[in-house]
Amino acid sequence: MRVVITGGAGFLGSRLAQVLLERKYLCDPAGNRREITELVVADVQAPAEPLPGVRYIVGDLLEPDSVAKVLDANTGSLFHLAAVVSAEAEANFELGMRVNFDLTRALIDRARKIGIRPRFVFTSSLAVFGADLPGVITDRTAAIPLSSYGTQKAMAELLINDASRKGFIDGRVVRLPTVAVRPGKPNRAASAFVSGILREPLAGRETVCPVPPETELWIASPRTVVASLIHAHDLAPERWGHHRIVNLPGITVRVSEMLEALKRAGGDPSLVRFERDPVIERIVCSWPARMQTTRATELGFPSDTNIDQIVRAYVEDYLGK
Amino acid sequence: MRVVITGGAGFLGSRLAQVLLERKYLCDPAGNRREITELVVADVQAPAEPLPGVRYIVGDLLEPDSVAKVLDANTGSLFHLAAVVSAEAEANFELGMRVNFDLTRALIDRARKIGIRPRFVFTSSLAVFGADLPGVITDRTAAIPLSSYGTQKAMAELLINDASRKGFIDGRVVRLPTVAVRPGKPNRAASAFVSGILREPLAGRETVCPVPPETELWIASPRTVVASLIHAHDLAPERWGHHRIVNLPGITVRVSEMLEALKRAGGDPSLVRFERDPVIERIVCSWPARMQTTRATELGFPSDTNIDQIVRAYVEDYLGK
Repeated sequence: MRVVITGGAGFLGSRLAQVLLERKYLCDPAGNRREITELVVADVQAPAEPLPGVRYIVGDLLEPDSVAKVLDANTGSLFHLAAVVSAEAEANFELGMRVNFDLTRALIDRARKIGIRPRFVFTSSLAVFGADLPGVITDRTAAIPLSSYGTQKAMAELLINDASRKGFIDGRVVRLPTVAVRPGKPNRAASAFVSGILREPLAGRETVCPVPPETELWIASPRTVVASLIHAHDLAPERWGHHRIVNLPGITVRVSEMLEALKRAGGDPSLVRFERDPVIERIVCSWPARMQTTRATELGFPSDTNIDQIVRAYVEDYLGK
Repeated sequence: MRVVITGGAGFLGSRLAQVLLERKYLCDPAGNRREITELVVADVQAPAEPLPGVRYIVGDLLEPDSVAKVLDANTGSLFHLAAVVSAEAEANFELGMRVNFDLTRALIDRARKIGIRPRFVFTSSLAVFGADLPGVITDRTAAIPLSSYGTQKAMAELLINDASRKGFIDGRVVRLPTVAVRPGKPNRAASAFVSGILREPLAGRETVCPVPPETELWIASPRTVVASLIHAHDLAPERWGHHRIVNLPGITVRVSEMLEALKRAGGDPSLVRFERDPVIERIVCSWPARMQTTRATELGFPSDTNIDQIVRAYVEDYLGK
């Protein structure tokens, strides 16, 4: 079975590719293991470190040629991770619409045209929530975003849900918490600092935190998120029914608690300078920090336990300690 | 001030045009009355009975030329009613996407390009609800549609909400109950029978009801809906805040109760033949029949009182009795 990851040159995508290369299979709708015979990573940028055993497609995925190359008659599964991140989509409305919404639509149209009905795993985000939030977010809380990124993700969710009902694709949408700790350089996500305030001090570098220490965040580790993507894929279609969207479990943690965990892991919290950025603060503080993820639990999605475990996983996976 | 109604050759649009011609003004964001100096009705079809004092633009509104004609530098307000109805959007996915979503997007893009920030009143629908419904629908219930029509409306809602936050338009989205009693011929809405089972017997004609008598519906009269569109327009932007979507009040009524009201109004219920249509039934029964419309009440939207009043209004307005 041919499996494609869009945005696969990014951090989450390449981690997912690695896990799939080791795992060697995914489940089909009947629950049977199907060998991954070809793993394709499609991205606008070339991978920093290409993985052996992966076929790369590099270029603007919205070119008609690219979409056809990404989804061909042999494609059984698609992990659609390609996205313009939150702060960038807020600054460049058209680019965000193009990548976060139009590309999703083009992939669905292509699948429909060639009649392959692929499993279509889509990474949405807690950023679909923002306006008029109740005290507790549940699986039935309306998504009224306060960012263009959240809006574009929420529109794509709806389209995937409908396209699944119509039988064009077999969609599975997971709304990711803020993913931390991300390795490498900061990206243009408004939430980039959430990883930065742990990663940078652990490497002995100074960094800036643009929100106050009492800010609460809803986070999940890369390990848990990648496991969730595969779990979302392997669940039988009947488990999803006509509602193809799920809020993933996360943990609620304050910035100040993250700095305490940093200290316990041997990092120096004084390397974090607080310097408020109203634009970042407005976006990040519009996201919920507490959610009741009943449906995810019922569907068997994994979750993290606490911030120390998340920091430890980062140290193990990326600092080789 | 130039005011535009898209889909204005349809039943609701032409009724709105009539009311605006008599009213002669709309309020600006500061709450001041602004005279309507030009009323434009844009529609793919020519009006059955053109209204004196209205300028008509007839043609495919998605042509770049048309969008530019519809929204020009003098346009202060837009009532965007043009839509492909539910059963038709379900049968023709691409047409639905084009009219219900792409046209909305094109109008927003045009407004943004010429920097006019018009008041943008959009008719959405209770059809945005469908999957995983709780017992009571509130203003915070997630919109997970079970139809392509509902999906396209929900996506357009999100885009209007974001475009309002970004300042491209000043959007106001009203989710309409099923509108009854509609005059004229049945359209391709899955809910067309809701008007048909009253209108046709009142004219002495036989008609078919595709759902069982115990089916509950959430309905509003044309009078109330047109008044709501104008109310949505005239509300100050601060009243809407960052959440530009509201569920309009309706009344809950069973099909059997509608037939009792028909009898009280002098119609013959035996002219209604029950003949179930699984496609219509699946769509219509996925819509909620009971909603808590707290926000609409707080914002001062009008509502109907009971089914007899709705039938009476139809007889007065259209049968001239």
